[in-house]
Amino acid sequence: MKTIRILGIDPGTAIMGFGLIEKRGERFKVLDYGCWRTSTELSTADRLVAHYNTLCAFLDTHRPEHVAVETLFFNRNTKTALTVGQARGVVLLAGAQKNAYIAEYTPLQVKQAVVGYGKAEKKQVQFMVKAILGLPSVPQPDDAADALAIAVCHAHSVRG
Amino acid sequence: MKTIRILGIDPGTAIMGFGLIEKRGERFKVLDYGCWRTSTELSTADRLVAHYNTLCAFLDTHRPEHVAVETLFFNRNTKTALTVGQARGVVLLAGAQKNAYIAEYTPLQVKQAVVGYGKAEKKQVQFMVKAILGLPSVPQPDDAADALAIAVCHAHSVRG
Repeated sequence: MKTIRILGIDPGTAIMGFGLIEKRGERFKVLDYGCWRTSTELSTADRLVAHYNTLCAFLDTHRPEHVAVETLFFNRNTKTALTVGQARGVVLLAGAQKNAYIAEYTPLQVKQAVVGYGKAEKKQVQFMVKAILGLPSVPQPDDAADALAIAVCHAHSVRG
Repeated sequence: MKTIRILGIDPGTAIMGFGLIEKRGERFKVLDYGCWRTSTELSTADRLVAHYNTLCAFLDTHRPEHVAVETLFFNRNTKTALTVGQARGVVLLAGAQKNAYIAEYTPLQVKQAVVGYGKAEKKQVQFMVKAILGLPSVPQPDDAADALAIAVCHAHSVRG
């Protein structure tokens, strides 16, 4: 049975959530999760460089075959979309450079995959992430929980 | 009198406009302009990798001290903002990695600087770019003209 490593990313300039899971058959194992923060004292460009460097080092160390990234809520404002887009661009770049398979999911798809209901509340998603991954508590911060949810969503669509 | 090289970029995933100018005192010289296109057959992530590689090679060759990038029209839709944001993130990353000073301007600022009127039409901006830079004709395509306009805008705010 093949083991697959999936890195879920919730992109952002100030804070980037990540969740690394392993899928073996129908079983999941959490390898690491958390978030990377960048200093508000840095320029946007330097924050992106910091995320890029951290991400490249993480990809080199853990070598996930898949990187799953959430696409934006399209009802959010354009300024948010531009900012998230910038961070997202750096994630897609680093993932592709490291030869990972890149998958993208809408929030609806993530909720559907994790809770079975596209309009689920954030709390429900977090509760199910905890349950599916057998974690002792709900992952903190929210960005990390979101990243794990994206990884789980992708795990449901790939075969071990 | 110091010479400054400014690279203006109009970011996009399918097509990225660029314009490289040199400022010496109050005089401008166009060194290069045009656009970089990526194949529609590539994934978004691979298109970003292609732009990143091209941009890094261009920065290594021409070593502009400044990179000027336009920020988005905030009345455009969030999907456009996300896509432009992704390409923009890659530009900011590459620029910062190559130690260029990164400048950002709104379309209003660009029009104000180039035409002297924030609500100028695209045609007027292109005409003034041609006049200011002493080009024989209006730069083509539009993405290249936009990139040159951004470079000129930034040139007005830096001292030689």
